[in-house]
Amino acid sequence: MSTSLPQPSSELTFDDLLRLTQPRSIMIVGASTTVGTLGHTTVLNLLDHSEFDGDVFLVNPKGGQWQHRPLYQSVGDVPAQAIDVALLLVPADAAYSTLEACAAKGVRYAIVFTGGFAELGEQGQTTEQEMLALARRSGMRLYGPNCAGMTLLSPRLGLTFSTEFRNDGRNNRVSRIGLVTQGGGLGRSLMQGNERGVCFSSWFSTGNELDLDNADFIHWLAQDPDIDIICTVIEGIKDGARFVAAAQAAQRAGKPLIALKVGRSDFGKKAAQSHTASLAGDDVVNDAVFSQYGVIRVDDLDEMLDVASLMSRVSVQSLQRICVYSSSGGAGVLSADKVGEAGLTMACLAQSTIAEMARYAPSYAALTNPVDLTTKALVDPELARKCLSPLFNDPAVDAVLYPVTSNYSASTESTVRNMLDVARNGMKAFVPVWMSSRRGPAHDLLINEGFAPIYSLRNAMQAIKRITWYAEKSNTARDPNGLMPVLPNAGTLVDLPRNEAGAKALLAQNGIRSPKEAQAITAKEAVVQASRIGFPVALKLVADGVLHKSEIGGVQLNLWNEAQVHDAFGQIIKNAHEHKISDKCIRGVLVSEMITDGVEILVGIHRDAVFGPILTIGAGGVWVEIEADVARCHLPASRSQIEQVFDTTRVAKRLSSYRGMPARDRGALLDATQRLALLFLSLGDRAQSLEVNPLVVLNNGQGVVALDAVFE
Amino acid sequence: MSTSLPQPSSELTFDDLLRLTQPRSIMIVGASTTVGTLGHTTVLNLLDHSEFDGDVFLVNPKGGQWQHRPLYQSVGDVPAQAIDVALLLVPADAAYSTLEACAAKGVRYAIVFTGGFAELGEQGQTTEQEMLALARRSGMRLYGPNCAGMTLLSPRLGLTFSTEFRNDGRNNRVSRIGLVTQGGGLGRSLMQGNERGVCFSSWFSTGNELDLDNADFIHWLAQDPDIDIICTVIEGIKDGARFVAAAQAAQRAGKPLIALKVGRSDFGKKAAQSHTASLAGDDVVNDAVFSQYGVIRVDDLDEMLDVASLMSRVSVQSLQRICVYSSSGGAGVLSADKVGEAGLTMACLAQSTIAEMARYAPSYAALTNPVDLTTKALVDPELARKCLSPLFNDPAVDAVLYPVTSNYSASTESTVRNMLDVARNGMKAFVPVWMSSRRGPAHDLLINEGFAPIYSLRNAMQAIKRITWYAEKSNTARDPNGLMPVLPNAGTLVDLPRNEAGAKALLAQNGIRSPKEAQAITAKEAVVQASRIGFPVALKLVADGVLHKSEIGGVQLNLWNEAQVHDAFGQIIKNAHEHKISDKCIRGVLVSEMITDGVEILVGIHRDAVFGPILTIGAGGVWVEIEADVARCHLPASRSQIEQVFDTTRVAKRLSSYRGMPARDRGALLDATQRLALLFLSLGDRAQSLEVNPLVVLNNGQGVVALDAVFE
Repeated sequence: MSTSLPQPSSELTFDDLLRLTQPRSIMIVGASTTVGTLGHTTVLNLLDHSEFDGDVFLVNPKGGQWQHRPLYQSVGDVPAQAIDVALLLVPADAAYSTLEACAAKGVRYAIVFTGGFAELGEQGQTTEQEMLALARRSGMRLYGPNCAGMTLLSPRLGLTFSTEFRNDGRNNRVSRIGLVTQGGGLGRSLMQGNERGVCFSSWFSTGNELDLDNADFIHWLAQDPDIDIICTVIEGIKDGARFVAAAQAAQRAGKPLIALKVGRSDFGKKAAQSHTASLAGDDVVNDAVFSQYGVIRVDDLDEMLDVASLMSRVSVQSLQRICVYSSSGGAGVLSADKVGEAGLTMACLAQSTIAEMARYAPSYAALTNPVDLTTKALVDPELARKCLSPLFNDPAVDAVLYPVTSNYSASTESTVRNMLDVARNGMKAFVPVWMSSRRGPAHDLLINEGFAPIYSLRNAMQAIKRITWYAEKSNTARDPNGLMPVLPNAGTLVDLPRNEAGAKALLAQNGIRSPKEAQAITAKEAVVQASRIGFPVALKLVADGVLHKSEIGGVQLNLWNEAQVHDAFGQIIKNAHEHKISDKCIRGVLVSEMITDGVEILVGIHRDAVFGPILTIGAGGVWVEIEADVARCHLPASRSQIEQVFDTTRVAKRLSSYRGMPARDRGALLDATQRLALLFLSLGDRAQSLEVNPLVVLNNGQGVVALDAVFE
Repeated sequence: MSTSLPQPSSELTFDDLLRLTQPRSIMIVGASTTVGTLGHTTVLNLLDHSEFDGDVFLVNPKGGQWQHRPLYQSVGDVPAQAIDVALLLVPADAAYSTLEACAAKGVRYAIVFTGGFAELGEQGQTTEQEMLALARRSGMRLYGPNCAGMTLLSPRLGLTFSTEFRNDGRNNRVSRIGLVTQGGGLGRSLMQGNERGVCFSSWFSTGNELDLDNADFIHWLAQDPDIDIICTVIEGIKDGARFVAAAQAAQRAGKPLIALKVGRSDFGKKAAQSHTASLAGDDVVNDAVFSQYGVIRVDDLDEMLDVASLMSRVSVQSLQRICVYSSSGGAGVLSADKVGEAGLTMACLAQSTIAEMARYAPSYAALTNPVDLTTKALVDPELARKCLSPLFNDPAVDAVLYPVTSNYSASTESTVRNMLDVARNGMKAFVPVWMSSRRGPAHDLLINEGFAPIYSLRNAMQAIKRITWYAEKSNTARDPNGLMPVLPNAGTLVDLPRNEAGAKALLAQNGIRSPKEAQAITAKEAVVQASRIGFPVALKLVADGVLHKSEIGGVQLNLWNEAQVHDAFGQIIKNAHEHKISDKCIRGVLVSEMITDGVEILVGIHRDAVFGPILTIGAGGVWVEIEADVARCHLPASRSQIEQVFDTTRVAKRLSSYRGMPARDRGALLDATQRLALLFLSLGDRAQSLEVNPLVVLNNGQGVVALDAVFE
């Protein structure tokens, strides 16, 4: 059974980018013969530093020649139609007319390097909208503007003005990792990861993302057979649904998607808005959505390099049980600390593993995990090999962490060489951590052999933790598309409720009760209603224009008998009079069932500008902000997804039976949450948010009660 | 007014280590002529690689000569008395007798490199105790055993067997930073920080710390005029009071003490115990004590290098307001993110600063913080200088963060050179962050000019945050020695209470009340007592052998009138009978005042094996473990220290007035906590722990009530 709500992802389509990434013809508009200009470097990148054998057309209004090639004075002069890719290095004010000429030529993809559009203000935004309209009319796709272009290394194709392209992928083997960034600066920094053995084989820098956006390239990389892992640096997500669809495509393809979202703090967000034209989004929502769709979120560039390179080496596997292998006791302990802090475990070695190591190790070595071969390992490199082998054969070990604390030149190099002999042929994840500030041959050996070192224990554990998270996420229940089951529902839809009473009535229609209550205008009536509802009760003033009842003594709680109700009524009216509330405003009191025992939960749903409906669930009551104990997920979501998310809060543990206290009605909470989610989705754009706080979870079998609800 | 309790620190004395660190005569026992042995390298380190001009005596049982020096066959043969330092490179089983000979020679300090003692088990522990007794008898101090010795670089003196000594301090200028580690491996790794411009001028590796321990060397460095900053890697603290005293000495000297404590997780702790012979301590206690005494705690080796080097450059100052200065928009945003995540702020630039930059910057540059000069800064290195100057002159900026995302060879080098022209002469903290994996001349320039780069934004912000924490800690209220004021006290001391009633009575003597209560053996009596105490009340079964009253229905809460009390009595007795509790065991019921409204706090004090009395204060009630919302401090502590610590918890915020709810009696909580602390301290070793949970904080002016208390 699945809901009939539209599944956004099924409606989203992505173009095949074959002719962009494997073009047969390329036109460079703004090709320059002046050394040092962007137009010159771009031509060099294509003609001298790429392995491109298709047609190349160079356009420059001055005409003339580039070596033996003609420089056409205008796009119209180019003697070809249906050109696959045009590169635009023209001034911003010439961009639109150039694009028009390209469209007339039947250009398939136009990469607009030029900046000076939406990122600078309103005028630029208008121009962009005109460019986009032109693209939509003509069918030509736009890449950029304000972008660093496209760098492919296998085979080499540099559609970029960067002088660095000539160095890309020269030092080390190309990795099976793709990269999508918006700006060029952070992307270029990552590309230089090449120097430490992390060499992205394709890099798309998408700039202002007027038309093609990062989702298009993530989606494309998800189906690229030369790519195993996708990295992306995101400054803003323009279309949440497309991003989610691309992330799901990567997930289906079994390719980890690693994302660095910049603009997460309020400071960063402000800057992101001035830098790109997109919405940085609410960061906690990004966190929730990324997690839900298996996107590995990293916090910094070095972490992205660490996670991507380790993952590309060890593939997707849970690395929960770590063995630390060192020649320093202190490094062993520190490593064990980091294992614990990361929530991973120290592997418990088999007796046979220890016995095998003991055949070679000195008597004073520590052969339990962390293994400490002492400085003996440095003077006897063979020892490294002999003792590493048994660890590789121990099925209780998922990964061997090897902290290289210091670089002792030749002896470190021999040790590393010996260990790589084992690691290269072993099926075990081997994680060398280069902790010394001194590099040199041993360090470079690791890189050259494809074992890119990580530079701190913390970073190593972080990478292992991220990979393990992803592997475990991939293994747990796959709720395809996150469908929600249909629940007995609402009936005819009503208008958005305007007050608490209306909100509670709508909840009641959806099977979520509120405290029993009744209005009374005399003390006697209040007593009658209280007896009907059952003790204890609360009394609350009902008076026009009074919002904060409790502050004027208009609320009396915990009334256990008729006499107390009678007195409380009088007290409330007296307090009202003392606060100068006239009799004609006083409508009586509300007699309410007291909910004395239960766990207060907040269930909220709001419409995020980027991703749409987001559920927030966690600790409710008056201390919501202080406790900050909530979790979020994107809707629609299945019951088990909601439960998983809820279970990350502290308050979830309070629903269990504990020290003689009864277990609470967790099932009823999940039912109610699903009902609220369906209700919200069915309200469509009319509702921007819905908050029930507190939703009190009673003892098992007794359900939940909504004490307050607000729709907006 | 101060308490009469002994102040541990005033009783602790530390030796002057002048003759250890500036010896006039050195004896090497186990000097070897065989190249590659430790005994050989040690002699080389002293004779060839140190600047030592005192007497050197070499001892080797085989006799003979080392070049032109005699090798004495025994310590007794050495023709000198009162030798300042002896280095022992002898087998473990010869250590004791060699030390005896040294003592006979009047050796002042014996550095025992030899391992194989307490770290290997019981036999070694026994030998160590004999060695220690010998030292105590003779007045000779021991350094080690199982240690890497002492490395001083200014002037050079290497009392170590490390082949690396010859390289120490050769590449870069020596920093005014001292280092104390236990093991040699992590210390050696830090010493190689030299390669990135962080060059410790003295390193003490203290090994098993049989006699001299890390506190001795921290204390010594605190008074060393060539040292501004002290770093220490701690595997275990043997004597908490001495450590605290040394930390206080550093604090008094205005020298930051930066500590990496290894063995913090349970995994690490287990390993630390096998590696050294000391107690790793409970890590949350370490955290609390370090924080209390201004020790900067770092999490990894790279962080120690980052914090120490940045601090040695910018000295102690609050770097709260950061300006980010970049040539990449993305890097600017990411930096702003990290500023926010670290709890720091983005500086608000003066209009004049922006105007001055605008004179030179391109029109499309972003001149608000983060400043983004765009790639223009890379092609025009002069721009870097011109735009950096105004930032250095802006009083609203504490530090300028300069993320170098990529290395564009020559242009990056010129930019860095131009910026260093400003930074070298400016008084502002300048923090270059080298984010590229490509090093080279621009990177090395930073090092050579004394601006050791940090390698990730996260690490940079972490260092800035630590330094700011320290600066602010140094500025806030100095409670010298953390004295506690004397409060109206306890009267004659009694025995440790054995049950709840006794515990509550002792609290009452100390001015902390418990709920009013009285025992009753009939329903009628219960009603009388309830009326006397005041409604609402609770009734609890009193019966021999029944521990978990609530699980058998032996507790009835919220009884608001006589009828309810009467019925509840009957129900409790009925429930007891149903649970087969015989009448002769039933002693009646306890009628208790119900505390219906207040904030539940936990106040606990326990005796930590390393540091002694530790206060724990925070969220109380049944959910203590789940909420994990407590903070700790070392006792004795002042009221303001306790308040500061308590204010780091979430629950502290619940004591404030909020949404019409009354403020709670914070003053009474602090009074009660101080009374409990004094009570605990006055009980001395008889009490190992004391826990009041919950201590309910009532509305302002109504005090606190202890609902339960346990002494152990």
